[in-house]
Formats: sequence, structure tokens, C-alpha cells
Amino acid sequence: MKPLPVSPLAPNKKQILTPIAGCQMASRNASIYYDGRFDMLLMAFDPGTTVAGVLTTNKMPGPSINWCRKHLSSGTARGLVVNAGNANVFTGTHGIVACAETAKSAAAVLKCQPQEVMIASTGVIGEPIRYERIIANLPAAQAELADDAWEIAAATIMTTDTFAKMASRTASINGHSVKINGIAKGSGMISPNMATTLSFIVTDAKLPPSLLKAMLTRGIERSFNLITVDGDQSTSDMAMIFATCKSGPENIEFSTTKDPALRDFRRKLYDLLHDLAIQVVSDGEGASKLIRVAVSGAASALAAKRIAMSIANSPLVKAAIAGADANWGRIVMAVGKSGQKANRDKLSIAIGGIEVANNGMCVARYDKSKVNTHMNSKNIDIEVDVGVSRGRSIVWTCDLTHRYLEINADYRN
Amino acid sequence: MKPLPVSPLAPNKKQILTPIAGCQMASRNASIYYDGRFDMLLMAFDPGTTVAGVLTTNKMPGPSINWCRKHLSSGTARGLVVNAGNANVFTGTHGIVACAETAKSAAAVLKCQPQEVMIASTGVIGEPIRYERIIANLPAAQAELADDAWEIAAATIMTTDTFAKMASRTASINGHSVKINGIAKGSGMISPNMATTLSFIVTDAKLPPSLLKAMLTRGIERSFNLITVDGDQSTSDMAMIFATCKSGPENIEFSTTKDPALRDFRRKLYDLLHDLAIQVVSDGEGASKLIRVAVSGAASALAAKRIAMSIANSPLVKAAIAGADANWGRIVMAVGKSGQKANRDKLSIAIGGIEVANNGMCVARYDKSKVNTHMNSKNIDIEVDVGVSRGRSIVWTCDLTHRYLEINADYRN
Repeated sequence: MKPLPVSPLAPNKKQILTPIAGCQMASRNASIYYDGRFDMLLMAFDPGTTVAGVLTTNKMPGPSINWCRKHLSSGTARGLVVNAGNANVFTGTHGIVACAETAKSAAAVLKCQPQEVMIASTGVIGEPIRYERIIANLPAAQAELADDAWEIAAATIMTTDTFAKMASRTASINGHSVKINGIAKGSGMISPNMATTLSFIVTDAKLPPSLLKAMLTRGIERSFNLITVDGDQSTSDMAMIFATCKSGPENIEFSTTKDPALRDFRRKLYDLLHDLAIQVVSDGEGASKLIRVAVSGAASALAAKRIAMSIANSPLVKAAIAGADANWGRIVMAVGKSGQKANRDKLSIAIGGIEVANNGMCVARYDKSKVNTHMNSKNIDIEVDVGVSRGRSIVWTCDLTHRYLEINADYRN
Repeated sequence: MKPLPVSPLAPNKKQILTPIAGCQMASRNASIYYDGRFDMLLMAFDPGTTVAGVLTTNKMPGPSINWCRKHLSSGTARGLVVNAGNANVFTGTHGIVACAETAKSAAAVLKCQPQEVMIASTGVIGEPIRYERIIANLPAAQAELADDAWEIAAATIMTTDTFAKMASRTASINGHSVKINGIAKGSGMISPNMATTLSFIVTDAKLPPSLLKAMLTRGIERSFNLITVDGDQSTSDMAMIFATCKSGPENIEFSTTKDPALRDFRRKLYDLLHDLAIQVVSDGEGASKLIRVAVSGAASALAAKRIAMSIANSPLVKAAIAGADANWGRIVMAVGKSGQKANRDKLSIAIGGIEVANNGMCVARYDKSKVNTHMNSKNIDIEVDVGVSRGRSIVWTCDLTHRYLEINADYRN
């Protein structure tokens, strides 16, 4: 598979992820699908590590989703095995066996229980996964475990990504400094791979699974659930957070996520997830522009999100933006299509901060040259107020370009 | 605006629409937006004509939608004025005045009441419509009324269509022969016009407005509501049926649409609407393939429709089809994304009648060459059974091609 050109929206600088106590990793070339690159990641966590996850709601999930859903309930984890190249989806019982056997073998090398090993797969679907190759590489991976191989780990889980996605933050819990590292993958689909968004977060903070789950869920709602590339939702999306519990105050119980001691951690976690989500949408197939759609004045936050997603998922809006066209008419159409309450005669739209429509009518004289300059840049900002109440939401997407079709249509099976 | 190449999916033969008693029409060049072509249609109906309409559910409708919604309730109509080139949308009170004044002037030349004149507009949005030009052309249009100018009428209402859309059927009501003619327009969007689907049906049958409404609503559910080009929904979609009541049994009351005497009329009307709807989706921007998506085994007919629409609206499925790729994996993903109940281990998929997936797994040896031949043809047939119950639905769409983007992105404002 020839290398893809790096997205024009890739971040200028790579973040550096430093070791987190209690967490080690190793990457291997298991030749599941790709040749000549790392495609298998083993992460090992010290005993006492707590875990939480958020999994796809797609009704056709792969067996690894079901495996994780079942075993995340214990709230503890000792390992994670991720393979890129085969999504282990839609292959009947073979896929279920593949999960179980991989977990069993990983548990053997990590000296833990199979149910403490999380499994994730991304890549082609419908082809039985050669899990024996994963298993064969586990002993060597265990021998090679190191605490500073984060960048390689991020590259290992890539499928159609054009750049590895990483983020890191530090936070303070009751005066203790803790670290949060995150890696993610996801861009879109290249035949016959499935779009899959995976994100794995590791922190050395000492946190119980219930709080991890609550914070991850909230964080995902504010990040990965606010991006869309083409409106399609994978069979394999998942986000997981592992807390090695090596840093932080002893003998302190946090009752809820609203505990003031967790405020900084929460903020930093949400910010990290948002950072990774923006990296994912920046790698949308063929993307040339990152688009921020901010809706205000809706009946509720959920209504605002639905309106924003209606705009962000509209092929006509995205195609117009690809052509640097400030086509606010299509934005009006997408607002109307959302089915959400909107006051036609109070509708206002701004592009790049310049108001182009106000009170349901187009603004007679707005600075077209400023708007054009904005539309020709890589970061597009659309604001819509629907004049009903105070609900707000912001979503991100990318434009719809010829390159999207080159990737998704211009090939033969 | 340079002429567009005719869609490769346009019908081979044009249907001939012959006169319908009690209905006359005339087309004019009012230069609202286009030059050198007819862009204004006046239709006149004899007294006694009954009418029903189905209008867009988009929450940002144009004023003509509101006008028609209000005046359709009387169930009678004497005129219809349609203009192409300006959708009369999003221009505040100017648009409301434009409707009212146009109806008033049309009523004057047709010698009826303004509320008996229906108004429809399609074209650019946000620009105040030059309705004085419509009004100026009404006297000449009235003088030119003729009963056989159907083909010109169909061409007059076109905006981004590449061919005029017409259909005709004859039906029998209690042994009386009646005629049904229909014209429609709609394909998609070219900057800065809005996607609008308009369809106008005229019959000489003698039918009360309540039955017209019931049959039209049901017919639209089975036709225009089962097509999608890019999932976007116009601010101005409408379908109207006018019955001049010139033919058919006197003094017969039909109690409901289920009256056996109406069976043939119903069938022919639904068939005509379906015909027009297929013509519209065949003119989807950039379409090179007409795609039929048939879902069975769903929890209900509505669930089946939602699954089918999820597949039909998926950019990834449509792009794959544009590339003649039988990518059933994306179809699986789209089924899962629909949120509807589906049995993963009973899922089966057939392409061009060849089963490619069965019982949740891909079929080991299917005739790839037959499937490839099918994928390279202009008519694509996808069947999905989700193995839950007996709900069925069939929807139509077209593929997503570079030409779509050339039309929608490759231009400057």
C-alpha cells in the first residue's frame, strides 16, 4: 500500500509523550495485513491499574467490542493488545475465538487473567484474522516492553491515518502532579478497511474505575462525539482510559467527579481528548479544511448539536467549503433539515466572524473580500444562531473533496 | 449558465403528455434569473377543479410553501404560477409580498380569487425575487394558454435538471377512462440554487380534495419519500395534484380511497409518482449509476426504510459504487449505523442478485465476475436482509462521483 501524503491539516509540532509509571509497551511486525511496518501493540499495566471504556453504539460491532464491554465491568486491567490491518469483524465465531485466544496468550506472558486483557482491532473486515501471528509475537513483545515507546505505539495502530496522533497533559490533584498520555487513530475509510476511531489514554493518577468511566464518558461527549468526517460510524470505535494509580494522594476517596480536587484533572483530560479528536478529524480522507460549526440559540444543547451535525454532515455544505464558497444558503437548508426548532426570521449566520445573514435575511453589504480570504484558509469558522433559546453546541468536520473520492471510489477490488 | 450534459441515466424515451380537459398552460421568459429560456409557467384550471398538496417539512420553508399550505385547505384551485431561477427564500417580508402580489395579479387575469392561485418558486436563495417581472408576463401568458404545451411546461420549471421530467398514465374509474399527467423537477444543487423537488399532477378525474390528499400523501410516501440524492432536503419541496373533474361518473361519492372503484386510479397515480421520482433521482448531480436498496427482515417497514436510507445516504457506500466496487463491508457499517435492530449473525447481502454475505459472514465463493459486471452497469441492485422480522422497504439513490464535486465545489462565487 503506497504511503499517503500527510494531511495538510496535520499539527505543526508533534507532542512528546514521556513515560508513565506502571505502564510499558512494545510494538511488533506481525504481518497480519501490512508488510514492513509495526502492526501489533502490546501494552502492559502494573497490578492495581483501573480502567474504563466507551465503545461504539453501532449495531454491528466486532467481537472485540463485545469482549471489552464484558470485561471492562471489572474495572481493572493488566494488558491491551491492539492490531492494525484486520478489524476482526463479520467473520462469525472465528472472530470470537480470535479475541479469546489472544487474551489468553497475552495473559500468559503478562502473568494475569485473560479477562484483564483488553483487545482492539482495526483494518479490513470480513477476512478471518490471522490471530496466530499475534499470539506468536507476544513473547517477544513482552521481552521488549519499555516505558518510552509512545510514538512508535501511536504509529503502530494506524491504518489509513497519514500521521500518528498523540497528546499529553499534566494535571494537579491535591497538589500532586499527574500525567495523562493519549494516542489515537482514525481518519476515514480506504477500501476495504473500516473507519475506526480508537483512543487509548493512560494516566498515573490514582482513580477508581467509576470515576474514570464518568470522566471518560463526559470527555468523549465533548470531543469524539462532536466530530464527524462523513457521518459514518464504525463497527469498532472505542476509547479506553487506564489509570496505573502510581501518583497522587494516598487514602483519599473522591466521591464524585465534581470533587474540586479533580477539577484540574478533568479539564486536562477533556482538553487532551479534544486535542486527539481534532487530530482525527484533521486526518479525514481528502480533508483540506478543518471546519468548526458553532450553533447557538437552540431549544437545548442537544438540539444545537443536532443542528450543528446536520450542517457538518451535509455533503453540499462540505463541498461548497471545499470550493472556498461561503454558501450560507446551504447552511440555511441544513438547519431546516435538522428538524430542530429554529426561528427563520431570527436566523443569523457568520462566516469567519463576518455576519453574512441576520434576522432571516442576507446582510446587504458585508466584507466579501474578508470572507473570501477566510474561505481560502485552512480553518473555517461557521456560526449560526437560530433564535429560539440558549442551547449551544460546537462540532468539527472537514470538507468534501475530490481526494475523498480518489480514496474511496477510484480503485478496483 | 452553460448547458449541462444530460444525465447518463435519463430515460431513453420521452413520455407524451396529451391535453387534459379543464387544464391549460403557458410558458414565458420572464428573465427572473435565466436569460433566453422559459422560466415562468402559468397553469389555468376550470372552475370546479379540486386540489391537494404535500409540502416540505424543512423548518426553514419559503413563503410560497406557507402560502400554499394556507390556501390548499380550501381544496379548490384555479391557477398555478411557477417560476424557475429564484426560490423566493430567506428574503424576509419581501418574499411574502411577492407571493401575495403574484397571486393577486394571476387571479385578475384568470378571473378567480387570489387564494385559488397556487405559487411555487425554485432557484437561487437569499436574493429578492423580481416578482414584478412575473406579474408583467401574466397577461401575455393568459392570452397564450393552450392545452397541449406540457413538454414546454416541464422544461420551464427546470433549474439544474439536465432533462425535463414527465409522466402520463390512464386509469379507469367505474369504467370511465381518466388521464393523469405529471411534470416534475429536481436533481440537486448548483451554486447558489437550492435543491428543490417540485411535482405537479393534473387529472381530469372527478375527485374530492380529501381523497386527492389521501392518495397524494400515500403516493408521495411510496415515491418521492423513498429517493435520496445526497440526504439534503430543500426549503421548497412540494407536490400538488389538481383534478379538473371533467371525466368520470356523475353523482358518485367515493367514501374512502379504499373504494374498489378507485383501485386502478390509485395504482396508476402511485406508479406515475414513482416514475417521476426515479427520473428525479436519475438526475442527481453527477450521477452515473441508479442504485436500488431493498431491505427486508427488519423490525417494521419504518425500520426497513431507515436502514435502507442509512445505506443510501452513506457517502462511503455511494463512493464505492461510483468506483464499481462491491464493498459490502460498508453496507454492513451503514446497517449498523442506522440504529435499527439487526441480527448480525443472520445478516445477508446480495449485489445484483448474487449473495455476497450470508448469516453474518462473507460468502466464500461467489461469482466475482458476475458481481463486477453488475457493478460496472448503470443499474445497481443491493438487497439486505437483517434477520429480525418482516419489515421491508426499497429506496433509490445515485452514486457519489467527481462530477458531483465539480458541480458543487469547483466554482467561485
